[in-house]
Amino acid sequence: MLSQKENDLLTRVGPGTAMGELMRRYWIPAAFSHQIPEPDCPPVRVRLMGEKLVMFRDTQGRVGLLDERCPHRTASLFFGRNEEGGLRCVYHGLKFDVEGSCVDLPCVPQIGGIQTRNIQNELKTKAYPCVERGDLVWAYMGPPEHKPDFPDLEWTGVTRSQRYVTRHVQECNWLQGLEGGFDATHLSFLHGGDAEHSRQVVATLYEVLPTDFGFVVGTGRDPGTGDIMWNINVMLMPFHKIISSVPHAAHVWAPIDDENTMLYSIDFNPYRPLTEEDLARSRSWRGIHTENIAGTDRAVRNKDNDYLIDRALQASGQSFTGMKGLGTQDCAIQESMGPIADRTAEHLLASDTVIVKIRRLLLQTLKDHAAGKPLPGMLPASYRVRSTRCEAPKGASLSETIDRYVRIDAPAAIQ
Amino acid sequence: MLSQKENDLLTRVGPGTAMGELMRRYWIPAAFSHQIPEPDCPPVRVRLMGEKLVMFRDTQGRVGLLDERCPHRTASLFFGRNEEGGLRCVYHGLKFDVEGSCVDLPCVPQIGGIQTRNIQNELKTKAYPCVERGDLVWAYMGPPEHKPDFPDLEWTGVTRSQRYVTRHVQECNWLQGLEGGFDATHLSFLHGGDAEHSRQVVATLYEVLPTDFGFVVGTGRDPGTGDIMWNINVMLMPFHKIISSVPHAAHVWAPIDDENTMLYSIDFNPYRPLTEEDLARSRSWRGIHTENIAGTDRAVRNKDNDYLIDRALQASGQSFTGMKGLGTQDCAIQESMGPIADRTAEHLLASDTVIVKIRRLLLQTLKDHAAGKPLPGMLPASYRVRSTRCEAPKGASLSETIDRYVRIDAPAAIQ
Amino acid sequence: MLSQKENDLLTRVGPGTAMGELMRRYWIPAAFSHQIPEPDCPPVRVRLMGEKLVMFRDTQGRVGLLDERCPHRTASLFFGRNEEGGLRCVYHGLKFDVEGSCVDLPCVPQIGGIQTRNIQNELKTKAYPCVERGDLVWAYMGPPEHKPDFPDLEWTGVTRSQRYVTRHVQECNWLQGLEGGFDATHLSFLHGGDAEHSRQVVATLYEVLPTDFGFVVGTGRDPGTGDIMWNINVMLMPFHKIISSVPHAAHVWAPIDDENTMLYSIDFNPYRPLTEEDLARSRSWRGIHTENIAGTDRAVRNKDNDYLIDRALQASGQSFTGMKGLGTQDCAIQESMGPIADRTAEHLLASDTVIVKIRRLLLQTLKDHAAGKPLPGMLPASYRVRSTRCEAPKGASLSETIDRYVRIDAPAAIQ
Repeated sequence: MLSQKENDLLTRVGPGTAMGELMRRYWIPAAFSHQIPEPDCPPVRVRLMGEKLVMFRDTQGRVGLLDERCPHRTASLFFGRNEEGGLRCVYHGLKFDVEGSCVDLPCVPQIGGIQTRNIQNELKTKAYPCVERGDLVWAYMGPPEHKPDFPDLEWTGVTRSQRYVTRHVQECNWLQGLEGGFDATHLSFLHGGDAEHSRQVVATLYEVLPTDFGFVVGTGRDPGTGDIMWNINVMLMPFHKIISSVPHAAHVWAPIDDENTMLYSIDFNPYRPLTEEDLARSRSWRGIHTENIAGTDRAVRNKDNDYLIDRALQASGQSFTGMKGLGTQDCAIQESMGPIADRTAEHLLASDTVIVKIRRLLLQTLKDHAAGKPLPGMLPASYRVRSTRCEAPKGASLSETIDRYVRIDAPAAIQ
Repeated sequence: MLSQKENDLLTRVGPGTAMGELMRRYWIPAAFSHQIPEPDCPPVRVRLMGEKLVMFRDTQGRVGLLDERCPHRTASLFFGRNEEGGLRCVYHGLKFDVEGSCVDLPCVPQIGGIQTRNIQNELKTKAYPCVERGDLVWAYMGPPEHKPDFPDLEWTGVTRSQRYVTRHVQECNWLQGLEGGFDATHLSFLHGGDAEHSRQVVATLYEVLPTDFGFVVGTGRDPGTGDIMWNINVMLMPFHKIISSVPHAAHVWAPIDDENTMLYSIDFNPYRPLTEEDLARSRSWRGIHTENIAGTDRAVRNKDNDYLIDRALQASGQSFTGMKGLGTQDCAIQESMGPIADRTAEHLLASDTVIVKIRRLLLQTLKDHAAGKPLPGMLPASYRVRSTRCEAPKGASLSETIDRYVRIDAPAAIQ
Repeated sequence: MLSQKENDLLTRVGPGTAMGELMRRYWIPAAFSHQIPEPDCPPVRVRLMGEKLVMFRDTQGRVGLLDERCPHRTASLFFGRNEEGGLRCVYHGLKFDVEGSCVDLPCVPQIGGIQTRNIQNELKTKAYPCVERGDLVWAYMGPPEHKPDFPDLEWTGVTRSQRYVTRHVQECNWLQGLEGGFDATHLSFLHGGDAEHSRQVVATLYEVLPTDFGFVVGTGRDPGTGDIMWNINVMLMPFHKIISSVPHAAHVWAPIDDENTMLYSIDFNPYRPLTEEDLARSRSWRGIHTENIAGTDRAVRNKDNDYLIDRALQASGQSFTGMKGLGTQDCAIQESMGPIADRTAEHLLASDTVIVKIRRLLLQTLKDHAAGKPLPGMLPASYRVRSTRCEAPKGASLSETIDRYVRIDAPAAIQ
């Protein structure tokens, strides 16, 4: 259970908020590269971290991400014309390049070149640097002097054929998504449902360790053989999860605003292209991906239709939820907590130790950031990790286990 | 005309409000029994008195009405699995019985039985006792120590074949409905429309008398024969009306929240089953019932389509409103006052004496309740009343008239 | 750039606001006459200046514009019955004439005639005087003692065959519309788009002169021949524009509320009926008129479908915006600034001199009104003006040019 103030601190992501400013120190996925497929193609709207933006690809192929409002008279640059070297506002013809500089001002009578340049400097608009990795456009929305290099996220480094990326909107705050992603206990219920079996195999060891990339969540069971069976999941700052599955997988919870989150879901194979069989499984909507309404980022199974819950299936016991797919199940239960979960109304249990520790760690990181302390995840190489299931001798520190099983010297495809 | 404060006092029904707490001292209809037709069937959402709840029927057939949010992590129990003896949250498997007790906690490692019981006690969730009467599930949402016995409402006591019950949502505050129900003057206009005739037969005597069940509203005319012609309508606390018609009828205005009301409408015959002819009339949508959009509680004729008003019919004089059915007419005019009528903007007339007196009586009852005084309607037998039209000698007290014409020793079917 | 306070002053139009009270000193278009085509026809809802009203035509053909709420119990008079000499509320039968007087009170027992008249006086409801001009119903919503005569707007004086009037809702504040209407600079971009040509012909002289009818906006170029080429547009208080085009045209931005505006667009010929060719052009949706969704005032090309922007057309250079029609282009760009443009976020340029001066003039007029000074536009004959393009000797005052080219002694059709 959190205080209302703590809940606000963790969940609010707009400009000037504590969590918002912390997240802005990292690269954030903003769109698929294919949404702006070629130079000078039409711009697209992007809502990210509570900000209204417009994205375009210029004549040289560079990506621009600008304030949606023209700084002149606040008309939307979404209706702009993407021309030689910049996006031109259709109201009065001002043109902006990918860096936000006003590079043409045709509506103003020609005056001295220096004076015009001064005016154009005043007109420089908000522009976020972008890079393209892993089929996505990523933006850096923080202070320029703190911009980190792009992290060595394994799935962004493999070739396109080794990766399958989808996204859909979760109609709730990002933290409900993240907490769900690291909540080990729900797996055997929400996605499983054999309560009797689950009761037997429930974890009894819960560890959350801060690391140089974020933190690891370890849940362990002691089968009495001398070894602990660990399930270790990595959280890469500020909102990435790598999933220990075959094929490998990952999630990114990128806040659209306080009450909506773009969940990117990735299947990837570090060693070889995905096979037709792999892709068929990814597209079956039984796993982490969701089927979307054509042309949108909204899932077909959504809160307005109760996720097409099949009560007969639920009653039959074949599915605990009666909902099709892990992605839908997670989305349903996380959204059901409301746009921003009221964490002051919770009653946490021993099995929520991981949740409690994650929140403490995030609150501590906010404090550290406010105090100007160094942040985790600033070094690209620190992201060279995988989640894993492993056995380690009873008594061995989790830290050693991480170094041995989680670190990968260099991701196969990033080498 | 009321002050804004008085209007708020009378209209707000959420937890902690004066009217909300008063109403919670009575049994409130929450749903049709047929919405949860059999043991272990799927749960349904119920919004009642501004609260979000979930209703289910357990293995023994008992009805549970719980806070929609699981007390553990606030996920919705609507998606829960209705299993042996309780509703199980699909997030982490907690199970709750109809009394709100946590009867299973499979996600927590097995610890001492006593300790687990302590945890389970902490997890006890909000649960309202329910009974089933008259095809409906009724909830008691007040302090347990004050729970009254279920009242002897005549229509709930007859056999199913003697009763026809429908409901639809009124998109406005409950008090607009109740006031409309006891406003005698509108009958000859809204539902009649021959202004000239109405002008002649308008009542000149208006009485509102508090009783042991609520109050009676008497409107009288003096035809000069020595007798007063009374039309007496009973209001049973906190929001029931019995209608003096053939067949007998009743209304219940159960608040969904401050701006929406579930209006239950009942036709019943205390002496014999309803005939095909009775039912055909009830289903003709010309009376108090409304035709609903299939699978919903929303009327086909609603505020988004101006209640399908037929202006030609209205102009023809065949219908004063051009709207089909008494229920639709009432709903239209009551909703047209806005979500909560602004009673500070009214100009009340001599013909509104009943409205003025009802408001005063309700305000007085709120004061009495706050002062801990006994409330009307706590004794089931007090509800053994019917509305009536009768003649009584000029000069006879209305109180005597009530005792003679309104009380029924024991309703036929309750005997 | 304005302060937030200034922006609020200029944009808010509800009862009691500075701009709202200023506008209420003038005649405001409320509806098409054809919406209430004949005596005793059904009433229609009108939302105007933030007020909810109901309009009807009485038995004598007079137009009434009343508060939508019945003063008795606040039921909507929209459902009222339009009867002999007035609109009768269907709740309790009160009847109101076009002046807002309660002319029948059938629900109240007959009492003394004088007393009844007193009650009826108390029940007098808000009613705005209306006149019909130019196919429209106009309302005067200000203090009765200040009601001006109807202005000599040229397009309202011609015969119906000389005029083509449409309207549609702009989903933004009125001032975005008005500013767009007098922003000369956008013409060659938003509606043209040849930036190179525009750069050459941009105006260098900007004048805004207060007049007895409102103000004139003059934008001039000095081609070096000794004469200034002026483009002079007139703004008639409080929100009219006459357009210098062939055929002649006009715009009226009538506020629905703070965030919606009814834009009336008029083509007219002062000298002869519009020809089939004229009408075909007006109806082509390539000019200032918009095609509306059948039976509504909403444009087919609206913000929910991005105005059906054709990106291929935009890229081709054949259309700068890719949007069909001047009206759509204006609406799109003005609405794109949001419901109420944030003028605190602007960066104004030399080419915005006209915008700056218009705002100053409007703010000054608000001050003058507050100080009780006389307002422009109170004399009908002052509206006898046209916008124009003309040449005037360098050095000649714009004021003289206005008197010579803008004034028309008497509009052809008003004579």
